[in-house]
Amino acid sequence: MPAALERAFSLQPELRDAAPRAALLRAVAAALSLARDRIIATAAAETSLTPDELAPEFARMTRTLEVFAGVVEDGRWTRESHTPAAADPADAIGPNHDLRSRLVPLRGVVVVFGASNFPLAYGVCGGDTASALAAGCPVVVKEHPAHRETGRLIAEMARVAIKAAGFDPDILGYVEDDGANSAELAKQLIEHRATAAVGFTGSLAVGTHLHRLGANRPLGPIPIFAEMGSVNPSVIFPAALALRGDAIIDQLAASITQRFGQQCTCPGIIFLHGNRDGRPFAEKLAAKLAQTPLRRMLSPAVASGFDRTVATVAAARAVSRIGNPAPGGPVLLHCTATNALAQFETVLATEMFGPGVLVVDDAGHDGDAMQFPGSLTMSIWFDSDSPDDVAAARRFLDSGRFGAGRIIFNGVPTGVRVCESMTHGGPWPATNRPDSTAVGLRAIERWCRWVSWQNAPGVLLDEWNG
Amino acid sequence: MPAALERAFSLQPELRDAAPRAALLRAVAAALSLARDRIIATAAAETSLTPDELAPEFARMTRTLEVFAGVVEDGRWTRESHTPAAADPADAIGPNHDLRSRLVPLRGVVVVFGASNFPLAYGVCGGDTASALAAGCPVVVKEHPAHRETGRLIAEMARVAIKAAGFDPDILGYVEDDGANSAELAKQLIEHRATAAVGFTGSLAVGTHLHRLGANRPLGPIPIFAEMGSVNPSVIFPAALALRGDAIIDQLAASITQRFGQQCTCPGIIFLHGNRDGRPFAEKLAAKLAQTPLRRMLSPAVASGFDRTVATVAAARAVSRIGNPAPGGPVLLHCTATNALAQFETVLATEMFGPGVLVVDDAGHDGDAMQFPGSLTMSIWFDSDSPDDVAAARRFLDSGRFGAGRIIFNGVPTGVRVCESMTHGGPWPATNRPDSTAVGLRAIERWCRWVSWQNAPGVLLDEWNG
Repeated sequence: MPAALERAFSLQPELRDAAPRAALLRAVAAALSLARDRIIATAAAETSLTPDELAPEFARMTRTLEVFAGVVEDGRWTRESHTPAAADPADAIGPNHDLRSRLVPLRGVVVVFGASNFPLAYGVCGGDTASALAAGCPVVVKEHPAHRETGRLIAEMARVAIKAAGFDPDILGYVEDDGANSAELAKQLIEHRATAAVGFTGSLAVGTHLHRLGANRPLGPIPIFAEMGSVNPSVIFPAALALRGDAIIDQLAASITQRFGQQCTCPGIIFLHGNRDGRPFAEKLAAKLAQTPLRRMLSPAVASGFDRTVATVAAARAVSRIGNPAPGGPVLLHCTATNALAQFETVLATEMFGPGVLVVDDAGHDGDAMQFPGSLTMSIWFDSDSPDDVAAARRFLDSGRFGAGRIIFNGVPTGVRVCESMTHGGPWPATNRPDSTAVGLRAIERWCRWVSWQNAPGVLLDEWNG
Repeated sequence: MPAALERAFSLQPELRDAAPRAALLRAVAAALSLARDRIIATAAAETSLTPDELAPEFARMTRTLEVFAGVVEDGRWTRESHTPAAADPADAIGPNHDLRSRLVPLRGVVVVFGASNFPLAYGVCGGDTASALAAGCPVVVKEHPAHRETGRLIAEMARVAIKAAGFDPDILGYVEDDGANSAELAKQLIEHRATAAVGFTGSLAVGTHLHRLGANRPLGPIPIFAEMGSVNPSVIFPAALALRGDAIIDQLAASITQRFGQQCTCPGIIFLHGNRDGRPFAEKLAAKLAQTPLRRMLSPAVASGFDRTVATVAAARAVSRIGNPAPGGPVLLHCTATNALAQFETVLATEMFGPGVLVVDDAGHDGDAMQFPGSLTMSIWFDSDSPDDVAAARRFLDSGRFGAGRIIFNGVPTGVRVCESMTHGGPWPATNRPDSTAVGLRAIERWCRWVSWQNAPGVLLDEWNG
C-alpha cells in the first residue's frame, strides 16, 4: 500500500500541464464508455442495484470526467487575480508590491474512499477522482469491499486508458480491501507522508473517524472531505398541502423509495408547518410507501443499520409507527414538533439510512421554532400564490436557524445535477467541510491551496501561467 | 464568558444586510482613528513596540476595516453563480434543475485569538475581526495577556462606535484573560455551541492545540484558521549573489531585525544555491546584524522561546555560530545543505522566533535537492539577465518540492500588502489551512459556507439576494 502512494506521489509532475490532463480525463471517460455494458453488468451482479438504476449513474460518471476536462481547459478554476502596484504608493495598504494569486494543486496524493451506494458515480472514477486529477493530484483509491469486482474492472480500464494517453498508469493507484482490516488500512493511507487530502463518502461514524485521523495526523493535518449523513428535511406549508397534498405525497414517496432509500439525499423528515394534525397526511404517505416492492438492501450492514436507527427513533417518547409495514419494507414514523425538539438527538438528528421517514406535525406549536440538524438539503414546499405560504416560507428562510447546503423549492432532494452552481455539502453532520462541495465544478477546489507571487519577473511568468 | 458568546450569537440577524454592515465597519475605523494617538501610546507603553512601529500598523488596522466595508458593498465576495435549466434537458447531467449558489456566513460567532506581536493589525479590530464582521458573523475576541490595556481600549472604542451605528455593541464581545487560565478559556470558547469558527495568530504549539480542539469538538468540528510558525526561506542564486550580494545582505539584515525579528514573515533561513562556501556571506551578514541596537523582546516567554530554539538549531551536528553576538543580540548560524537536510526537523523546520537566521550553503550538493518545510513565504533572489540564474530559478520553482503561500522575487518577506491578490498562508506548519489567507480580500471566505437554491421561485428571490 505505501508503495502505491509513493509511486503516485512521484508521478505528480506528469500532471503539471493542463492540456494533457484534460486529455487524460477524456481518455478515461472514453475507455469506460467502451466497457459500459460490462461495467454495468458487473455492478448489477455484485450489488442490489439494477441495470436501470446503474445506467444513469454510469452516464453521470463518464460525463463528470468530461466536464472536468473542460474545467481544466477553461482554466478559470484557478481563480487567478492580479493586483498591480498602485500608481500612487499611498493607495496601497502596506508596501506597494505587485501581487498575483491563484489556486494550485496540493502537493501529494488524493486518497479516495468511495461510497457503498453509488459504485460508479462515487466509485473509482467518480467525482472525487475526476476533480482531483483535474486539479493535478495523483489519486489512490481504496477499494470498497461492497463492490470489489466493479472497482477492479473500472481501475483496470482507467489505467489502460491513462497509459494509452501517455501517462504512467500508477497516477491512478488502487488498493485492495477485503474488509477485514479496513480501519487499519484507512489509518495507514491517511497518515502516510505522500497523502495530501482525502475524499470520503459514507456514514457519519466512519467519516468522523477519518476526519479525526486527518486532523490529528502525526505529520501534520491534511484535509478530509467527508460527505456523511443527512436527514434532508421537507417543510410543507399549509396552502401547498391543501392544494396539492396528494401530488406532494406521490413525489415524496417516489423519492423516499428510490434505490430503496439508500441515498444521502433521501427525504428523512417531513415537517408539516402550521399543521396541528399530520396523521391523515402520514397515513396516506404510509399507504403509498407500502406499495413499494421489497428488495435486498446494499449490504447486511446497511440493512442492520437501518433497523437499528429506525428502532432508535421509534423508541423515543410519543413517536408512533403508522401503518403496518411488511418486514423489511419502508417505515413511517410520526410525532409532534414538541416531542421531536425535546428529543432532538434521537428523533431529529438520527438518519435512518434506508426507506424510512419521520412525519412531524406542528401540534400546538409555532412552526418557526422548528430546528433541524445540518443537512445536505432542505425542501420547501409552498404555494407561490398564497400570501400566507409566501410569508411563512420567507420567515423560515430568513430565520437562519436551519443549515442545509441546498434549498429546494417544491421538489424532492434526490437527483443532483452536476453543474457550476451545485452545492452537494452542508453543515455538520452532513459534512465536515460546509465550505466545499462534493459534486459540481467547485469540487476541484477541495484539492487546492492558494499561492501568490510578489513582483513576479517577466522572464518567469511562463512558470506562473503554466 | 459563555454569556458573551450567547449574546453575540443572538445578535447575528442584525448583521444580515450589507449596507449597515459596511457602515458598521466604517464607523469602527472612524472611531479608532479619532483615538489614534491614545491607542498608539497605550500599546507603546505596555509592549516593547515603538510608536514609529505602531503607526503604520495602526493605519493598516483602520484601512483594513475600510477595505472590508468596500468588499461588503461590492458584493462579489459571495461568488454568486447561476446555472439555469438547459434548453435541451439532455445537456444537463442529472435532472435539469435551475441552480444558484453563493457563499453565506457561517451560523454563529467567530472567536478571535489575536497575536502577541501585532496588537493592532492582528488585535481586537484586526483583519480577523474585520473580515468576520464583513461576512456577517458576530465576533468575540479573547484578550491577549500581553497587551490587555490596548485590547480593552480598542474594544471600548469599537463598541461605542458599533452602538452609535445602530447595532447592539455585544456584536463585538471581549473576554478578559489574565493569562492564568488561558488554556481552559480557549477550550471553553471553542467548544461552546455558539462558536462557528476561530481565527488564531501565534505559535505552532498553541495553534496545533486549538486546531485539535476544533477538529475533535464534542458538538462537531468547527474550522480553526491558525497562522503559526514559518522559517521563510530565502534562496539566493549565484549571479545575483555575485552582482549584488552586499545589497542583498543589507536588505536581509534590515528584514531580520525589523521589530527585532518578532514577525511571522521574518527571514529564518538563507540558502546559497550553488555556492560551496557560504562563510564569507555569513560573516558579512553577521557583522551587519551585530550593528542592531539591542532591545527588550515582546515578552519573557518570547525571549526564552528564542533562546531555546536557537539552542536547538545550534546544537545540531556541524552547525556553527558566526561572529560573537552580544548577549540578547541577533544570532547567525551556519551549516551545509547536507547536514541541514540530514537533520531536517531540528535544523530546517525549527523557527527561531526573533532575530535569528540560519545560512545554509550548498557544499558538495546539488541545490535542486534542497527542501524546506511549509512556510508563509519564500524569497527567490536571482538575476534576470543571467541565463544560469534564470534556468536555476525556473527549475527550483518547477520542482514543486517547496511549499510557500507567497513567492517573492528579489525582495524580503516582511511587509504584507493588504489587497485582493495577497496570500498570507501556506502549507503546514505555517498554517493548518493552506486553502485560505489571513490577510487580503479573500480572508472573508474563511467565515463562509456554500449554499445553493434549486428552482428558486421569483417570489422569494429577494431573500436570495438579501
